[in-house]
Amino acid sequence: MSSPVSPLAPTDVPDMPAISGVKLATAAAGIRYKGRTDVLLAVMDKGTAVAGVFTQSKCASAPVEWCRAKLGRGKSSRSGFARALVVNSGNANAFTGKTGRQATALTAAIAAKALGCRPDEVFLASTGVIGEPLDATKFDGVLAGLAAQAAPGEWISAARAIMTTDTFPKVATATVKLGKAKVTINGVAKGAGMIAPDMATLLAFVFTDAPIAAGALQSLLKSGVEDTFNAVTIDGDTSTSDTLLAFATGAAAAHGAPSISRAGDPRLKGFTKAFRAVLADLAEQVARDGEGARKLVEIIVDGAVSKKSARRIAMSVANSPLVKTAIAGEDANWGRVVMAVGKAGEPADRDRLSISFNGIRVAKSGARDPSYDEAEVSNAMKNPKIQIKIALGLGKGRDRVLTCDLTKEYVAINGDYRS
Amino acid sequence: MSSPVSPLAPTDVPDMPAISGVKLATAAAGIRYKGRTDVLLAVMDKGTAVAGVFTQSKCASAPVEWCRAKLGRGKSSRSGFARALVVNSGNANAFTGKTGRQATALTAAIAAKALGCRPDEVFLASTGVIGEPLDATKFDGVLAGLAAQAAPGEWISAARAIMTTDTFPKVATATVKLGKAKVTINGVAKGAGMIAPDMATLLAFVFTDAPIAAGALQSLLKSGVEDTFNAVTIDGDTSTSDTLLAFATGAAAAHGAPSISRAGDPRLKGFTKAFRAVLADLAEQVARDGEGARKLVEIIVDGAVSKKSARRIAMSVANSPLVKTAIAGEDANWGRVVMAVGKAGEPADRDRLSISFNGIRVAKSGARDPSYDEAEVSNAMKNPKIQIKIALGLGKGRDRVLTCDLTKEYVAINGDYRS
Repeated sequence: MSSPVSPLAPTDVPDMPAISGVKLATAAAGIRYKGRTDVLLAVMDKGTAVAGVFTQSKCASAPVEWCRAKLGRGKSSRSGFARALVVNSGNANAFTGKTGRQATALTAAIAAKALGCRPDEVFLASTGVIGEPLDATKFDGVLAGLAAQAAPGEWISAARAIMTTDTFPKVATATVKLGKAKVTINGVAKGAGMIAPDMATLLAFVFTDAPIAAGALQSLLKSGVEDTFNAVTIDGDTSTSDTLLAFATGAAAAHGAPSISRAGDPRLKGFTKAFRAVLADLAEQVARDGEGARKLVEIIVDGAVSKKSARRIAMSVANSPLVKTAIAGEDANWGRVVMAVGKAGEPADRDRLSISFNGIRVAKSGARDPSYDEAEVSNAMKNPKIQIKIALGLGKGRDRVLTCDLTKEYVAINGDYRS
Repeated sequence: MSSPVSPLAPTDVPDMPAISGVKLATAAAGIRYKGRTDVLLAVMDKGTAVAGVFTQSKCASAPVEWCRAKLGRGKSSRSGFARALVVNSGNANAFTGKTGRQATALTAAIAAKALGCRPDEVFLASTGVIGEPLDATKFDGVLAGLAAQAAPGEWISAARAIMTTDTFPKVATATVKLGKAKVTINGVAKGAGMIAPDMATLLAFVFTDAPIAAGALQSLLKSGVEDTFNAVTIDGDTSTSDTLLAFATGAAAAHGAPSISRAGDPRLKGFTKAFRAVLADLAEQVARDGEGARKLVEIIVDGAVSKKSARRIAMSVANSPLVKTAIAGEDANWGRVVMAVGKAGEPADRDRLSISFNGIRVAKSGARDPSYDEAEVSNAMKNPKIQIKIALGLGKGRDRVLTCDLTKEYVAINGDYRS
């Protein structure tokens, strides 16, 4: 918890505008950490639509199961709405069996009582240690206090309360026109470790005042994560708790924003772009704050037989400990990139393969590029951002994945801290 | 190269008997390393049968392609025989394009000339840096000298010459009856990093004087690797150069050993068991010498829906950086084991899952085992060998995988050394 701020942290933290219909408050409930906030309550106005995507883990946490069940009731007229989000850090409430399910029900009941809403309008997320029972009675009193003090401008505090081994709070914002009205999208996220794709995402919450129905919001979210959160990997380890929830209060309808019921609505084009930009911004911040990260690594694969194949190859490279340690050592070890391409199991022809590091081609047509200058590429490897471009020369499939290097600090963080 | 010997190195190095029909010699050809041997020549008598399994990488090295092509000609009466094996360390001759193919042809030609055999009776393996052209002219002169000095007893020297970041030479031996004759099986291997399954194996060579035909030897090898080399992972990274070759000189026929033409021959039962024991011994040594390893980790999964499913779950755990760093930190962090089970994508029911570390059950029925004593398990984690047992409670599928922990030394070795 005492790690210094990642050298890859964004230097500009945006001013986070208020989102009409959303209020936030944080508290130190003492769940695990001392001297810091560990609970976030977001209170939403009546009529707020909600959508979510979750971990693909077969051992999902109790809050993930809670949220899935509440969203799953999206068929009835009462569902697809949210009044509150309660997030805690320090304890993931995962692999906690029946106790875990009881803890989610109790948390939702406490929040519902504090806000005067139904428990099934309360959404939950927990992050931290796996397997420890979460004592939800700690929320009693705390949530009522938070409900009373919730305010529109607490975005940085919100992002801070949900951190675990993160070294900086992650926020992103965008303002865009919907019809003739200005609408806002704000997001907060936490990342750091146990982060891999084939999932929904880590913990991230996106809020907007745009009047978008739950079904349309779900479609936006599902397509939005594909090239943002799902294209980020820190260590190839998929959490039991990955949760991305989106909330649309609809408050902008009062200023003339049209109500949107379908994701394909042409009026939503600009919004969709801005929404994805917020997701992409948060996802990149997660990569920038990978545990022990000193380098942000962008892997671009083109010329694959399909986008899916390009994704698999990019992920094979992004998750290779040998590629990641080489980058930590500022070594343009393209031989290890070849290895990682080769092990991906996807179509690849050694004799057509080209590889470049930060724009310098080091390998082409299945062998070392005879023109490359080791000193030039060594120098390029000192950059905090490393782009590895892999051209397969087989087809038109292209994809991009973000990751970070694998340093001794990653081992130290994860060998010492029980997360 | 200067790493101290792994604390997990076997304390007993076996006396390696001679194998009738096999002679070995090593030399320092100066391929990459200074002051150590880096070439091994094994000379086999006429009539030696050969079999091989290789990396599944799509970017296999030139020597792998050479060996595959020579074995692939197993249909003609002239093929399936070997007279020589040339192995070099320091350069993998991988991703070296046309130059790489020329280097294999030249190496085989030099060896063939030195031994008076055909080039297609020469088998090759290379390990070390990827992408650097291998200057095969360095073998000129060297191989003729080695052919002249080859002797039956050089097994430890042979194992030493093929090392890269290995900290100890890996040898194994077994003696067993075939018919009424005593036959011997000797093996050497190298490992250390870039080691993962879904492949043939790393570099390993097994020799026997048993008279076993090439086809039968190939069957033995293919079934033998499944639960030995293919059940080991160091870092999930599959090399471009993985090669396991087996040679059977048949010299024991002179002492009455029967000639075996089918792997299913009942007379081969004892031999098959001994052969697998040699493979298993070498494979375990590879895990014991994983780069930076301080703990040998055995993962046993039972109660899976099938053996294949158990293997995938075991590999998911074995390749998880978070599990491996926790073990390095002597932390029985079973939450991370749950995570790795969950991300494997195989059938698993959280509420039936039990996990133990070195015989101490820490989780059962989807939650922490209330009876477990943190101090007791912490003490058990100090052991250099850690067994993680995962009971899924779904079926009868069982499997076992070996790996090692992930330490700062792994990062140091791979961030500094271009391998």
